[in-house]
Amino acid sequence: MPHSYLLFNPDPNIRQIASELYESIKNMPLICPHGHVNPVLFSANKPFPDPAKLLIIPDHYVFRMLYSKGITLESLGITPLTGDGGLCEKDSKKIWRIFSENFYLFAGTPTGIWLTQEFDTVFGITEKLNSQNGMDIYNRINDKLKQPEFLPRALYEKFNIEVLSTTDGAADTLRHHKAIQESGWKGNIIPCFRPDDVTCLSDPGWRNNINTLADITGIGITTFKDYIDALEKQREYFKSMGAVSTDHGIEEPFTVWLSGSQVEDIFSRALGGIATQEDTRLFTAHMMMEMARMSCDDGLVMQIHPGCYRNHNRMLFDRFGPNIGADIPVATEYTRNLKDLLNKYGNDPGFTLVVFTLDESTYSRELAPLAGHYPAMKLGPSWWFHDSCQGMIRHREQVVETAGVYNLVGFIDDTRAFPSIPVRHDVARRIDCNYLSGLVARHIIDMEDAHRMSKALAYDLSKETYAL
Amino acid sequence: MPHSYLLFNPDPNIRQIASELYESIKNMPLICPHGHVNPVLFSANKPFPDPAKLLIIPDHYVFRMLYSKGITLESLGITPLTGDGGLCEKDSKKIWRIFSENFYLFAGTPTGIWLTQEFDTVFGITEKLNSQNGMDIYNRINDKLKQPEFLPRALYEKFNIEVLSTTDGAADTLRHHKAIQESGWKGNIIPCFRPDDVTCLSDPGWRNNINTLADITGIGITTFKDYIDALEKQREYFKSMGAVSTDHGIEEPFTVWLSGSQVEDIFSRALGGIATQEDTRLFTAHMMMEMARMSCDDGLVMQIHPGCYRNHNRMLFDRFGPNIGADIPVATEYTRNLKDLLNKYGNDPGFTLVVFTLDESTYSRELAPLAGHYPAMKLGPSWWFHDSCQGMIRHREQVVETAGVYNLVGFIDDTRAFPSIPVRHDVARRIDCNYLSGLVARHIIDMEDAHRMSKALAYDLSKETYAL
Amino acid sequence: MPHSYLLFNPDPNIRQIASELYESIKNMPLICPHGHVNPVLFSANKPFPDPAKLLIIPDHYVFRMLYSKGITLESLGITPLTGDGGLCEKDSKKIWRIFSENFYLFAGTPTGIWLTQEFDTVFGITEKLNSQNGMDIYNRINDKLKQPEFLPRALYEKFNIEVLSTTDGAADTLRHHKAIQESGWKGNIIPCFRPDDVTCLSDPGWRNNINTLADITGIGITTFKDYIDALEKQREYFKSMGAVSTDHGIEEPFTVWLSGSQVEDIFSRALGGIATQEDTRLFTAHMMMEMARMSCDDGLVMQIHPGCYRNHNRMLFDRFGPNIGADIPVATEYTRNLKDLLNKYGNDPGFTLVVFTLDESTYSRELAPLAGHYPAMKLGPSWWFHDSCQGMIRHREQVVETAGVYNLVGFIDDTRAFPSIPVRHDVARRIDCNYLSGLVARHIIDMEDAHRMSKALAYDLSKETYAL
Repeated sequence: MPHSYLLFNPDPNIRQIASELYESIKNMPLICPHGHVNPVLFSANKPFPDPAKLLIIPDHYVFRMLYSKGITLESLGITPLTGDGGLCEKDSKKIWRIFSENFYLFAGTPTGIWLTQEFDTVFGITEKLNSQNGMDIYNRINDKLKQPEFLPRALYEKFNIEVLSTTDGAADTLRHHKAIQESGWKGNIIPCFRPDDVTCLSDPGWRNNINTLADITGIGITTFKDYIDALEKQREYFKSMGAVSTDHGIEEPFTVWLSGSQVEDIFSRALGGIATQEDTRLFTAHMMMEMARMSCDDGLVMQIHPGCYRNHNRMLFDRFGPNIGADIPVATEYTRNLKDLLNKYGNDPGFTLVVFTLDESTYSRELAPLAGHYPAMKLGPSWWFHDSCQGMIRHREQVVETAGVYNLVGFIDDTRAFPSIPVRHDVARRIDCNYLSGLVARHIIDMEDAHRMSKALAYDLSKETYAL
Repeated sequence: MPHSYLLFNPDPNIRQIASELYESIKNMPLICPHGHVNPVLFSANKPFPDPAKLLIIPDHYVFRMLYSKGITLESLGITPLTGDGGLCEKDSKKIWRIFSENFYLFAGTPTGIWLTQEFDTVFGITEKLNSQNGMDIYNRINDKLKQPEFLPRALYEKFNIEVLSTTDGAADTLRHHKAIQESGWKGNIIPCFRPDDVTCLSDPGWRNNINTLADITGIGITTFKDYIDALEKQREYFKSMGAVSTDHGIEEPFTVWLSGSQVEDIFSRALGGIATQEDTRLFTAHMMMEMARMSCDDGLVMQIHPGCYRNHNRMLFDRFGPNIGADIPVATEYTRNLKDLLNKYGNDPGFTLVVFTLDESTYSRELAPLAGHYPAMKLGPSWWFHDSCQGMIRHREQVVETAGVYNLVGFIDDTRAFPSIPVRHDVARRIDCNYLSGLVARHIIDMEDAHRMSKALAYDLSKETYAL
Repeated sequence: MPHSYLLFNPDPNIRQIASELYESIKNMPLICPHGHVNPVLFSANKPFPDPAKLLIIPDHYVFRMLYSKGITLESLGITPLTGDGGLCEKDSKKIWRIFSENFYLFAGTPTGIWLTQEFDTVFGITEKLNSQNGMDIYNRINDKLKQPEFLPRALYEKFNIEVLSTTDGAADTLRHHKAIQESGWKGNIIPCFRPDDVTCLSDPGWRNNINTLADITGIGITTFKDYIDALEKQREYFKSMGAVSTDHGIEEPFTVWLSGSQVEDIFSRALGGIATQEDTRLFTAHMMMEMARMSCDDGLVMQIHPGCYRNHNRMLFDRFGPNIGADIPVATEYTRNLKDLLNKYGNDPGFTLVVFTLDESTYSRELAPLAGHYPAMKLGPSWWFHDSCQGMIRHREQVVETAGVYNLVGFIDDTRAFPSIPVRHDVARRIDCNYLSGLVARHIIDMEDAHRMSKALAYDLSKETYAL
C-alpha cells in the first residue's frame, strides 16, 4: 500500500483535509475514456510474458530515460525494423538487470512513482528496485504473471475499471472488440475513432490507408465525397461497437472550412500523389471542421491532441520506427487556430470538443479562457510529459480560476501500460484532493464544494463528458 | 466578515506574519487609478435597480461562465442588439434563480471569492448562495439596495475610496465628470483618456469618431496634423478634468515612428476609407509613439493593455455586441515590439509607461527585465483572467526577483463592477501580505522590508506612479 | 552566518529534512565550470580597490536596478566610452552612499540575498545596509580589502573552489592563465573557448577578430577551410591550457549544415564586408554544427546560451558600450532549431551539449523532453534572470519530472562577481535541498535518493559533465 500521505502537502491542516477528501473518492470505479491499451489483451486474455516485456520494452517513458543516459535501445530489447534484429537483446533478465541498476534515474519522475506504486499495489513488491534485489524482484513478478489473477481480464476487474477506451485507426475492423463482446465477458472495452492516418496527407501510408478504408466500408473512394461517406460510415460502425469519441493527433490545431472545389482539388492531388505541404496543412485543417460537423451529427466527442513534433530523432526512427521516446513538443497556438471551428460549432449544445496541450503556456492564456466561454469546449487534463505531480498542480492552478472545475473532463490516463492504470488514477486523485484541500485551508472553498469537486474530478466529469 | 486567515498559507508561521502585515495595511484608503465604472453612477446617484441588474447582467465574468455550461445569454437578461429583444428574460428573479442554482460553478474562481466576500461585507449575507436560499438572498439584497446607505456615493465613501478613475473615449464630453464636480460632492472621480476608437483604423466607427473628435475640439480634421492637434487639445481637456493617465488597448504592442509623409499617406487613405490592414498596424504603432511623446509633454501616465483577441465568438458578437465574455488572449511579444518606444522615450525621467499583459510567459522573460532596466517603464499587476489568487502569486513570483517590488504599480482593480471594488483590493492585499510573509519566513527579507513592501503594494506605488 | 533555515520552507517537516540534506553537502568544494571572472585577478593577485569598485561599478545586476529607479549610470561611476568621462563620478564613497540609500530596492531579489550573505560571510557585516550605516560599512569593507586574506588567491582558497573556468575569446592568448600556471600557485583557473566574436558575422569587429585569429594561430585566413583550421588549432591550444568547454552566445539556437560551396560563398562575402543578415543567420547556424563536430573530436563540452536581445537600449549602448543591464530575453525555440544538430551529433556518446535558456516556457515543453531523450544533451541550471530562488524552484519543478535529476549539470554561477561565488552556490544548494525535502515529505522519494540527488546537484553532476 502506498503511504497514506503520498503526494499530500505535509502541512497537518492541508494533509488532514486532503485525506478526508481522498478517503471519500479513492475507491470509485475508474473511467478510462482515452488510452492506448491493446484490445487483444482482453480478447486473447493470455498471461503477460515476463516483467521486461511487460514493463520495459513497450514503455517509451522507461526506455527513453535509459537511452538518454547512454544505454542503447538494442540492449533494452527494442527490436530494429531492419534485418539486424539479431543484435537486439533477447534475454529479459539481462534487460531487467540494466533497468534495476538504473532505476535511481527515475527518482522524482512520474514514471518512478507509477512503477514504485505498481510494484507495491499490483505485485506486492515493497522494496525499492536496485542492482542487488533486481533479479529477486524479477522472479517474484514473473511468478505472479503466471497466476490466473494476473490475466488481463482478472486485472481489469480487480482494478475496478468501469469502461476502457482503446484508440483505433479509421480503417480498423475492430475484430478484437467484436471478439470481446462475443465472448460474453462483462468488461467494457470500447473503441475510439482516430482517423489521422487517412486525414494526414503526408502520412507515407496514406494511399494504402485510403484503399483499406474503401475495402472495409465497401465505398470506392475516387472523390472527396466518397471519402467523407466512407468516414461517416466507419464512424457509424465504431459507434455501433461502443465508441463515444474520436481523436486527432495533429501538429497544429489549425482549422478552416475550404470551398468544395478547393478541397476536391487537394483531394485529387493527394490521390495522384502530388499533394504539396500546404495542401496537407489545409486539408488537415478542413478535416478538423468536417470531423466537428460529423460529431454534431453523431454525438461522438471530438478530442484533439496537438503540438508534438513526432520522430525528432531520425536515426532512431529509421532504425526502430515511431514511439521510441523522441516525440518533442512545440509551441502551440489555439486562439486563432481554433477560431473557425469554434465559431461554426462551438455554440452547438450537441457538440463536445476536448482539447489537450503539450504547451503549458497556453493553459491560462488561451485554453482556460476558451473553455470558460464556449459551451462545446472542455479541457483535457495535463497530458503526456505534464501528466506528473507538478504538471498536474500547474494545470489545476492555471486553468481552474478561469474555466472552473466543471469545464474540465477529469483524469485521463492515456496509457498503453495497462497495469499502471490504477496507480495513474490514484496519483491524479491524490493530487486533486491535495489541490482542493489547499483551497479549503485558505478558506477559498468549503468542504461541501471540495467534496463535489473531488468527486467530479475523480469520476463524474469523465462520465458526463463522454456520456458513459 | 471574511475569515481572518482568508487566502493565507495555513502554515502557522507564515499565517502569523501575514496577519501582522495585513493588519497594518488593510484599512488604508483605496486608490483606483484604472477601471471601468460608469461615472453616471455618481452624477445621478440613483439606487441600483435590483440584484440581477447589479451583479449578473453587466458582469461578463459571471455570465460567460454560465454560458460555457450551456445557459443562454438571453435567459440571463442580456439584451440582443437586434429587434428580438423580446426573447430576452426581463424577470430579474428568474435570472437570479438560474444564477443561484449554478453558483457552485464559481468554486475556486476569483469571481466566486469576490461575490462571496461582497455578499458578506457589503450586504451582510453569510450563507453560500444556492438554489434553496437564492430567492431569500435576492430579497435581502434588493431591500438593501433601496436604502440610502447603498446609493453609489454613500458606498464610495463607505468603501474608503480615495480616487477612482473611469475610462473614457477620446471624444467624450466628460459631462458626468463635470456634473460630479459641479455637484459639490467630495468624491474624487477622474477620467482616463482612451483613444482606441480614434487610433484604430479598423474600428468600424472610426470615421464617425473622427467627426465627433473634430466637433468636440472645434478642429476640422483633414490632415494628420489636425488630428494630432485635436488629440492634444482633448488630452489637455481631460487633464483639466483631473485625468492622470491614458490607456491603450491594442492587439500587439508594436511601436514604430513613421516618416511624416508615410503617416500622412496612411491617414489620408483612412479618411478615404481605403486603409489596408498593414496601414492599420503601422498607424497604431506610430500612434503609440505619438502618445508617448505627448505623455512626455503633458505628464499623463501611459498605460498599455495588449494581447487580447476581441470578440472571438462572431455569432455572439453579431447578436449582442462586444464585452460578452468572448475576448481571448494571444501570445504577445514585448522585447522587440516596445524597442522603438523605449529607445526614444524610455530613458526620459518625465515619462511613465505602465505595461500590462495577458501572456504570463512574458512576466519573467520580457517584462520584468524591461521594467528592471528602463526608468520610464513600470509593470501593471496581473490583469483580467490573471487577477486571481494563483494569478497574483505567479505574477509576484515571476516579476519581483528581477524588477523588484518598486518597479510595480500596486493593485489595480480594472473593474466595471463598482460594489466589488473593496473585496478586489482586499484579496490583493491579502495575497501580497501572504507572499511577503513567505519571504520573511524563509529569511529572505526582514519585517522592516516586508512592512515597507506591503504598504507600497497596497497604496504607495499606485499613488506615486499616477501622481495622485 | 546566514540563518540556518535561510530559504527553507517553514514547514517543520520539510525544514528538518532540508537541514539534514544541506548539512551533508554544504561544505563540498565548489565546481565553477562556467563564469566570467577575470583571470588577471589571480595572475596579478592585487588587492581589490574599494567597495564600490568591487561591488557596484562592475555589476550590471546592481546598477541596472538603480538605473531603473532614475539614478544615472554616471553617478554610479560607470564611465562613458566617449570623451566626457569627466562627468562620471570618481568618488567611490559618493557612489556607495547612493547604493546604501537605495539598497531597499533589492529586497526580494537574488542580488539582495547574495549581497546580504556576501556582506555577512565574506566581510562579517551583519547589519542591513541603509543610509545611516552605509559609510561605516564602506569603511569596514574597505579595511578588510587591504588585508592579505582578502587577496584574490586567498579568497579562492578560503572559498574552497576546486576549479574555476573563465570565458575567453577565440583569439585570446590566455596569457593570464599561462602566468597563473607558471606562478606555481595551486589554484585551478581554466579557460573556456567562446568564439562568438569570430563566428558572428554581424559583429562590428569581426574582420579584425579574424585577423587576430590568423595572427595568433599563424594561419593566413583567406578561405573557410583556413578559418576552420585556425579555430581547430586554437581549440587545441585552449585544451592544452586546461579548457574543458566551449561557449556560444547566440540570439536563436538555429542549426543547419550548409553545403561546402554555400558556406564558402558566405565566408567570402563576409571577408569582403558584404555579408547579408541572412548570411549571418545561416553562418552562425552552420558554425554551431561545426563546433559540435569539433567537440565530438576534441571532447570539449559545448555550451549554448541563446535567447537574449543584446544592448536593447541603444542610447546607453552608444554611450557606455555593452553589458550595462539592457540585455532583454526573447522567446526562443529549441525543438525545430536544434533538430539538425541533435540528429547529426546528439546520439554520439562522445559529445556533450549543455543547453541554457532565458525562456522558461521551454523548460517543460522543449528542453526537458530533449534532454530526457538525447544522450548528448544536458540541461544547464536556471540562468541569469532566472538564477533566483523562485527561478530555481520553477526550473527544478519543470524539468526534473521529465528529464530526471541526472540529465542536469548541477549549479553554475556564471558570474563576473568573484566574491559572490560562495553565496551563489550556497543559495543553490539550499534551494535544491529544500526542493528535494519537499519530495521526501510527500513520500515521492526516500532519503537515500534525496542524498544522492543533493550530492549530484551540488557537486557530482558538474564534475562529471565537464570531466573535471
